[in-house]
Amino acid sequence: MPAQNKPSRIEKWLLQEIYRAAGQPAVQLRLRNGAEVSPRSALAVAKIVIQDRKTLLRLLLDPEAEFGDAYSDGRITLEGDLVSALEVLYRSLPEAEHQRWYVKLVSKCMDYVQRNSLRGSRRNIHRHYDLNTDFYRLWLDPQLVYTCAYYLSPGATLEEAQAAKLDYVCRKVQLQPGERVVEAGCGWGALALHMAKNYGVTVRAFNISREQILFARGRAKELGLSQRVEFLEDDYRNISGECDAFVSVGMLEHVGREHYGALGSIIDSSLAKTGRGLLHFIGRNHPLPFSTWTRKRIFPGAYAPALGEVMQVFEPWDLSVLDVENLRPHYARTLEDWLARFEKSEQEISRMFGLEFTRAWRLYLAGAVAGFHAGTLQLFQIVFARTACQQIPWTRAHLYTKEQQENPETKWMHATS
Amino acid sequence: MPAQNKPSRIEKWLLQEIYRAAGQPAVQLRLRNGAEVSPRSALAVAKIVIQDRKTLLRLLLDPEAEFGDAYSDGRITLEGDLVSALEVLYRSLPEAEHQRWYVKLVSKCMDYVQRNSLRGSRRNIHRHYDLNTDFYRLWLDPQLVYTCAYYLSPGATLEEAQAAKLDYVCRKVQLQPGERVVEAGCGWGALALHMAKNYGVTVRAFNISREQILFARGRAKELGLSQRVEFLEDDYRNISGECDAFVSVGMLEHVGREHYGALGSIIDSSLAKTGRGLLHFIGRNHPLPFSTWTRKRIFPGAYAPALGEVMQVFEPWDLSVLDVENLRPHYARTLEDWLARFEKSEQEISRMFGLEFTRAWRLYLAGAVAGFHAGTLQLFQIVFARTACQQIPWTRAHLYTKEQQENPETKWMHATS
Repeated sequence: MPAQNKPSRIEKWLLQEIYRAAGQPAVQLRLRNGAEVSPRSALAVAKIVIQDRKTLLRLLLDPEAEFGDAYSDGRITLEGDLVSALEVLYRSLPEAEHQRWYVKLVSKCMDYVQRNSLRGSRRNIHRHYDLNTDFYRLWLDPQLVYTCAYYLSPGATLEEAQAAKLDYVCRKVQLQPGERVVEAGCGWGALALHMAKNYGVTVRAFNISREQILFARGRAKELGLSQRVEFLEDDYRNISGECDAFVSVGMLEHVGREHYGALGSIIDSSLAKTGRGLLHFIGRNHPLPFSTWTRKRIFPGAYAPALGEVMQVFEPWDLSVLDVENLRPHYARTLEDWLARFEKSEQEISRMFGLEFTRAWRLYLAGAVAGFHAGTLQLFQIVFARTACQQIPWTRAHLYTKEQQENPETKWMHATS
Repeated sequence: MPAQNKPSRIEKWLLQEIYRAAGQPAVQLRLRNGAEVSPRSALAVAKIVIQDRKTLLRLLLDPEAEFGDAYSDGRITLEGDLVSALEVLYRSLPEAEHQRWYVKLVSKCMDYVQRNSLRGSRRNIHRHYDLNTDFYRLWLDPQLVYTCAYYLSPGATLEEAQAAKLDYVCRKVQLQPGERVVEAGCGWGALALHMAKNYGVTVRAFNISREQILFARGRAKELGLSQRVEFLEDDYRNISGECDAFVSVGMLEHVGREHYGALGSIIDSSLAKTGRGLLHFIGRNHPLPFSTWTRKRIFPGAYAPALGEVMQVFEPWDLSVLDVENLRPHYARTLEDWLARFEKSEQEISRMFGLEFTRAWRLYLAGAVAGFHAGTLQLFQIVFARTACQQIPWTRAHLYTKEQQENPETKWMHATS
């Protein structure tokens, strides 16, 4: 569309329609040829410029998917802060937008194509996690922990916060020397190695990303922990043998809601009679699929469940939920740290994968920051246990009192006194 | 049945059947005329003596209801510790026992007869809570807090633990001076008064037990808090007006699972845009009705939900669950304290309501101790908030660090930075 073309009536109308459908957010919406809509009562936090008419039409059909693709390939540009703009959009976007017939149809088709069968999961995981460890090294912490960190204070660094998270998880499940841990979905192995090194446990850690497993085995060797930590390239559905603690950090998003029963069954069949465990995952306030764009370009087959949905993992097996913590502000903070590092390595990433990839991943990271700020995304840590578990602390104070952290002899609840 | 009658074959068979159906618990089961069954491998923790054949037959049909009634009127007696016997029974009783056609039918009928309509709830609540304040004074703490206490250490007294619980609830919802609180189901008013006195808030507290409301108003007057705490004799479904915090401790058990949507809707319509709240209730690991005996004799219309069911309160209204804590060991401990005081006042209680009442209530209290020990009952505290709530602490440390308790200036999460 040459700049000299004056905006037509229909273009103006389409722009208005898109703005209205987005819930009249505090952003300025503009067609390259000059047509524009501005917020009436609020100041615009950013200006979104649409470069051609085709994009305008497609935005009406599936706004989130088209916004993502058009932002990635430059058909949409943005003046102002991306995170703030997305946050404003998430807050204003009416829920009904996810329920359009076209979006629902695409979403259903995607559910099928990206289904998390044994083979499908391998394919889905491969697409994201096998990209290239050097790429993730550019913007994750040196231990390559690719899940929500835990900032003891808002001023903590990413490195400190990831180390604090690993330890927080261990203390939440009350690991004791000599115990057997199963980790389902172990990423690059940081948690499994932390457990073995600092808590004297043995760990069998499962993952279907070959890149990650190879890297994790290398690190275990370097740290002299190969005897204590076994990294298995296998699906969580193939876990066998007994464990005292079952831990999974950031895998549930890739399980798919139709498989929560299967995950629960695996936990039930592997967890000792007095065992306990922890699940850490991105969740929602209520059931809602990921945007079709996120599933198409970033996380194939992913789903962030509401707590009510996750209970299918526990309820059929009489597992007690002991503690649920929502760490939403910590994931917003973690993602801000990742995004800042990502921006610093922008040129290198573009050399690796091209400009479109860089823009797509920037959008994914910025969108996640905005989602955790706006509350469309949550981060849950659930501690659970068998009813016969003896290692239930009397209160949660041991997680926070420094003396007790250094002296892990906490008071246990003796369920069977 | 005179003692000289020898046990018949059919009596012996019936006794075996009951024992088998109960999952062969570590108790001795005995008919008064001498027939008996003993555990094969374990030592019996108690001896249960059935006084007549009619009771034996009825036990086969609806074991829990008949055990309760027969224990109450003396047709079943018990030698040994009642709590231990019930704990052993709860652990051995196969879940299938609750699913017998006869029990299910009785349960369904009860659901209807004891339904929690506006009128039905008044009737149900009246039967338990309007009994007589002097009766509850005999075995509760002086503040008459009739919900799970919070024992900072296992050696704390009931008085200390109830005071700690009241304060723990206030700190969990981060009350600020001048805020408006709604309490749904306020018992004898201890929490509402604690909030107004120690946190400078105003409270509107709802309850449909007239006895409790009258008592609570009296206490507010004594404490000079009548201007800050309003006790309303009304149903939670009639709550109107806006509040900054919505708190309900021990009411959800009386709401009934078909009304969780209604409760959520009331929370949604009364909670300010940045509000938050707390729900405290007896729950389960998975959906299961209360025994028909408990509903017939102790808590008409009551239901303890699984977490998955409770999510109906939050999910339709986009409320974020921030924190779930399972205080199961604390309720076992609370009930032990209540039961010990109850036993001390046994004669006075029997003079008030008769021996059958005393035995029924002893069974209810002992059964609850056993249920929380065995894990058939759980106690959940859920903190929730609007997504726009600003008062989300950065970590939960402020609940446990003494300095921070004395200086409530905790670090807030600023959702909208």
